[in-house]
Amino acid sequence: MTVRFGVIGTGAIGQEHIRRVEKRLSGGKVVAVTDISLDAARHCIEALELDAQLCDSEDEILQDSSVDAVIVTSWGPAHEGSVLKAIAAGKYVFVEKPLATTVDGCLRIVEAEARMGKRLVQVGFMRRYDASYVTLKREIESGRYGAPLMVRCVHRNACVDHRYTTDMAVLDTLIHELDVTRWLLGDDYTCVQVLYPKTTRHAPSGLQDPQIFNLVTQSGVVITAEVFVNCQYGYDIQCEVVCEDGVVSLASPQAVDIRHAGLHAQPVMQDWRFRFSDAYDAELQDFIDHVARGAEPSGPSSFDGYVATMVGQACVSAQGRDEWVTISVQKDLTIGFIRNNGNQRE
Amino acid sequence: MTVRFGVIGTGAIGQEHIRRVEKRLSGGKVVAVTDISLDAARHCIEALELDAQLCDSEDEILQDSSVDAVIVTSWGPAHEGSVLKAIAAGKYVFVEKPLATTVDGCLRIVEAEARMGKRLVQVGFMRRYDASYVTLKREIESGRYGAPLMVRCVHRNACVDHRYTTDMAVLDTLIHELDVTRWLLGDDYTCVQVLYPKTTRHAPSGLQDPQIFNLVTQSGVVITAEVFVNCQYGYDIQCEVVCEDGVVSLASPQAVDIRHAGLHAQPVMQDWRFRFSDAYDAELQDFIDHVARGAEPSGPSSFDGYVATMVGQACVSAQGRDEWVTISVQKDLTIGFIRNNGNQRE
Amino acid sequence: MTVRFGVIGTGAIGQEHIRRVEKRLSGGKVVAVTDISLDAARHCIEALELDAQLCDSEDEILQDSSVDAVIVTSWGPAHEGSVLKAIAAGKYVFVEKPLATTVDGCLRIVEAEARMGKRLVQVGFMRRYDASYVTLKREIESGRYGAPLMVRCVHRNACVDHRYTTDMAVLDTLIHELDVTRWLLGDDYTCVQVLYPKTTRHAPSGLQDPQIFNLVTQSGVVITAEVFVNCQYGYDIQCEVVCEDGVVSLASPQAVDIRHAGLHAQPVMQDWRFRFSDAYDAELQDFIDHVARGAEPSGPSSFDGYVATMVGQACVSAQGRDEWVTISVQKDLTIGFIRNNGNQRE
Amino acid sequence: MTVRFGVIGTGAIGQEHIRRVEKRLSGGKVVAVTDISLDAARHCIEALELDAQLCDSEDEILQDSSVDAVIVTSWGPAHEGSVLKAIAAGKYVFVEKPLATTVDGCLRIVEAEARMGKRLVQVGFMRRYDASYVTLKREIESGRYGAPLMVRCVHRNACVDHRYTTDMAVLDTLIHELDVTRWLLGDDYTCVQVLYPKTTRHAPSGLQDPQIFNLVTQSGVVITAEVFVNCQYGYDIQCEVVCEDGVVSLASPQAVDIRHAGLHAQPVMQDWRFRFSDAYDAELQDFIDHVARGAEPSGPSSFDGYVATMVGQACVSAQGRDEWVTISVQKDLTIGFIRNNGNQRE
Ligand SMILES: [Mg+2]
Ligand SMILES: [Mg+2]
Ligand SMILES: [Mg+2]
Ligand SMILES: [Mg+2]
Repeated sequence: MTVRFGVIGTGAIGQEHIRRVEKRLSGGKVVAVTDISLDAARHCIEALELDAQLCDSEDEILQDSSVDAVIVTSWGPAHEGSVLKAIAAGKYVFVEKPLATTVDGCLRIVEAEARMGKRLVQVGFMRRYDASYVTLKREIESGRYGAPLMVRCVHRNACVDHRYTTDMAVLDTLIHELDVTRWLLGDDYTCVQVLYPKTTRHAPSGLQDPQIFNLVTQSGVVITAEVFVNCQYGYDIQCEVVCEDGVVSLASPQAVDIRHAGLHAQPVMQDWRFRFSDAYDAELQDFIDHVARGAEPSGPSSFDGYVATMVGQACVSAQGRDEWVTISVQKDLTIGFIRNNGNQRE
Repeated sequence: MTVRFGVIGTGAIGQEHIRRVEKRLSGGKVVAVTDISLDAARHCIEALELDAQLCDSEDEILQDSSVDAVIVTSWGPAHEGSVLKAIAAGKYVFVEKPLATTVDGCLRIVEAEARMGKRLVQVGFMRRYDASYVTLKREIESGRYGAPLMVRCVHRNACVDHRYTTDMAVLDTLIHELDVTRWLLGDDYTCVQVLYPKTTRHAPSGLQDPQIFNLVTQSGVVITAEVFVNCQYGYDIQCEVVCEDGVVSLASPQAVDIRHAGLHAQPVMQDWRFRFSDAYDAELQDFIDHVARGAEPSGPSSFDGYVATMVGQACVSAQGRDEWVTISVQKDLTIGFIRNNGNQRE
Repeated sequence: MTVRFGVIGTGAIGQEHIRRVEKRLSGGKVVAVTDISLDAARHCIEALELDAQLCDSEDEILQDSSVDAVIVTSWGPAHEGSVLKAIAAGKYVFVEKPLATTVDGCLRIVEAEARMGKRLVQVGFMRRYDASYVTLKREIESGRYGAPLMVRCVHRNACVDHRYTTDMAVLDTLIHELDVTRWLLGDDYTCVQVLYPKTTRHAPSGLQDPQIFNLVTQSGVVITAEVFVNCQYGYDIQCEVVCEDGVVSLASPQAVDIRHAGLHAQPVMQDWRFRFSDAYDAELQDFIDHVARGAEPSGPSSFDGYVATMVGQACVSAQGRDEWVTISVQKDLTIGFIRNNGNQRE
Repeated sequence: MTVRFGVIGTGAIGQEHIRRVEKRLSGGKVVAVTDISLDAARHCIEALELDAQLCDSEDEILQDSSVDAVIVTSWGPAHEGSVLKAIAAGKYVFVEKPLATTVDGCLRIVEAEARMGKRLVQVGFMRRYDASYVTLKREIESGRYGAPLMVRCVHRNACVDHRYTTDMAVLDTLIHELDVTRWLLGDDYTCVQVLYPKTTRHAPSGLQDPQIFNLVTQSGVVITAEVFVNCQYGYDIQCEVVCEDGVVSLASPQAVDIRHAGLHAQPVMQDWRFRFSDAYDAELQDFIDHVARGAEPSGPSSFDGYVATMVGQACVSAQGRDEWVTISVQKDLTIGFIRNNGNQRE
């Protein structure tokens, strides 16, 4: 069965997902499109030469019986409403992060989905589909290196523009580390502290950059996560898991190795899109594959989306304070059929 | 337009390409299948749950107007016949290497295609689609490092079985280096010499392993290519281009970096399928994309397939002799519309 | 002029320094030796075939006009007394870390030396002589990478025995990072916090291992220093300085690169002696060179020894507490001729 | 006992060895100096503040009973005469490469030394003392990787001046690989072939650069050695030994690792002096240590010096020809007490 998609939101990321479905992945097809700006949606249909219907509203898409699943790529504050309506309509939903911008909004989605008795929602945390992270998780779970004790994450971007704010370092940037580290460890956070080093002269006025986040998990793992979004030299994602018997890290993706002008060098990626390009493909292909055979999605769940938002809020509230902030996951939410994949250790 | 494929040959590589078209790529569909063993073809249709017709012969496929293009994945000696018939039928052909097992066979294909006045054939030299090789070529062509002077290729496999023979080191193994180096340099070979080092104790009886191939190009580049198919430690492809102002090499693909048991280590891939998995996807997607929009394929051409077979034969004839063997490409073949992509330097 | 050394303390490190002076370095000679155990001293003279006098006490050495300089390699609590006597006798002193075990003891030494109006003391912080650290400092000071913002130190040992205690993680281990980071940055610490991750099962009972030390400097650099002394896989010293325009790190010292058994690997050093062997030679040769030409030593000063002990005490007092501990250097000590090399930024 | 040195030849390398003995190593002293230019010798004594006698001739040095050993650092053609006279005088000799510029000259030295019944001569092939090569040899000899099958050497210099000629690529450059590879393998060469790739535009007029040397050993190992002395990017020495069960290579010496301006980079050494600085110290210290205790030197012998010159001549005669040139070592020379260290496999 070909999965027929409706797309809600045709901005940059929406168009990327449409192109992915139409030009690179197998088993999906975009049949309906809408956007807060109908002109934008119309233009998208034309530019991408889609054989898809222009819909006036998300409601029109959600009531269309020829739509099997929706992709929600509108701006963050609109996610909750669209996802709730999609669940009510019994449609599968692939929603870009954040699941919702408020913890309560996330909880409403988790509960709505639970009432449906079926997983419908997948959140766009693509790193869980990155080959390096997958190998890293497999190595840790092999038991060969003993229990994890510490994790070091680094998230560096070459630069950001003046609209980037200090809390975006959590909600737009660190959020990926918050999700993927929890998934790697199968463990939940208990508290967070934020350190503010000297700010780079390259930071737009008012932005604290870099920032260091120290997190502790239930089993006592300490995570040190650096966010530095004006590092100048490129896009650089690092993750090192220090275990009792060894240390396992992401390798840096490298295409070539150059000896030139006094240096032995490997070019650093400049753009995050390249770094996780395969992972973006893989997450959506996996969603399509599950939906196509009538199975529940198995990627990041609404519960994972809730945890990310909730932990993110705790990190934001820890910014600019010199104290540890407590984090507590509502574990009872996970009862029943809403599995948060691989993160339970009972 | 969806490209409707007929597949001739449902062995391992045939099934892989079918799975690729059906499960991972966009814009293609397998509609007809045949094999020298009809049972094998029938079993393939069932195992992969294809919505495809079982055909008694390749002729049946080639006469079927609902087939736009064929994938030829039969055994080597059968390639020539299938490709010639496909050209005669005006079908696009994606043929696994070798294009044909004889130089004359290859020439017949090039000429047949030339008579059609249109490129129809793409040969499965997937390395030209590998991101590392593509970056390597781009770096060389940037001019930043001056003219290439030497190339060092290494092709190592963990092990081979007792059916692997000394000439297969050229025809099954080195053939990839022969194609991709020529493509990287945009240059043609003029002569080859083979050195036989001491043989590893791991080589099956009668097999010369390792072997070293020295090739010289028209512009004077010396290529040293090692083939070592019982290296034990893994699958390892290296390519280093030494230029006047710098050296550019393929980086080793690495997912993780491990510190354990006294070593700082990166796992080496064990299987060639993993190493070029993305390249296999990319070559076929590119073929589909061109055919879908009615364009000629732009990947490795029948002329490239001819050169590979011709140079491969020269390498085989140089094996076991202590002399240089001359190689001469029939350049006049390249006139007209049969471009051999990027390899001309007029 | 050959520098004639008296050695106070002939334990393992004492014997190493003697061997260094006698067998590997130029311009020095051991002429007198003592130890708390005269038998040990006598045995040392015989074993190393020294042409040196066995002295009953350090006083005998210090009153000997044929002794130009002393090497103090007794146990830590005895350092202060020996160094003070050496200063009073006007002898040059190379003293192993710690300068003294108490902050007050260090201050007494700094003041005694100041009263002499001349630098006499060099403390054995050998990392300042390590080629990698020296290059790292030169790169940072080039200005090419802008101001330092964060430093990440890692100090891992394969294992320790049951006598190693939680405070030794500071006083025996971290102490090197405390000195060398301050020297790298030319900056002083203002506060420290210690995090206790989950303890490895390999830690002897009662030992907290690993530990994470967060330090802040006057200019706002945040230093994250991991001490993990049962990491199992080897001896691993890392130091990464994140600056505004780039990141500079120590490279791992590697002799060979091995592809074997599925891994591409570099052996990790197992013993700290190997790692800093050249630095130990260089620090003592530098001391000899200065003394030989009647110049003041230019290596780590008594002031540097005082800072290390004082900051170390602050780190120990921060262990097991969940708070930042303030550190304040007595800057007025640095007036006059006692330079603390390169660490002033006025 | 302090080894009292006479130095014959006070050019750049002579002064370096003098400084080494006087300022960095233990157990040696320069007591007499001469040079073809007495002014140069006098200036050297003054500049280095040596407490050494200025001698009118090498004969004066060699007849001086207060001289224990000589360092021969005159220009190549003068080596034979000095070494023969030193042997006749019963002095130990440390001679820079080449032992002699002719094969016959080398043979005369080997025979003279054999007649003395004692090893007196050590040749300055310092790479045998380099920690990386030593580790490489130890790994190969561990047997862990099986028998060596192929070796790949790379010798690249940033640039040379217009006086550098094509045969110097062998006699000044490749000569180090010729010695150290034979020592690594404990095997002797049987034939050599030289390939001339396209020449870099950076080569001075008339110079063939790069060159590739293919050598075969008695046990069948094939060595591919690239000499490229205008590679522009730096000084780069590589050596990779491909064995039956694994590959062992020299690691690149790296002090720091830099992420800057779009690159992840390690600076490449620019000067060969830095690369083997420790090895130069170690070879001379080892010579001093042996002589000081009345033992024969154990470093590269006159026989090794003979082989290097003889193989080097064969390589030169193979340049510019398209043929294999046979190499045959006069093995009978090795009888008796003149051991060529570790290279015999009977
Ligand atoms: Mg996503
Ligand atoms: Mg293929
Ligand atoms: Mg020391
Ligand atoms: Mg030398």
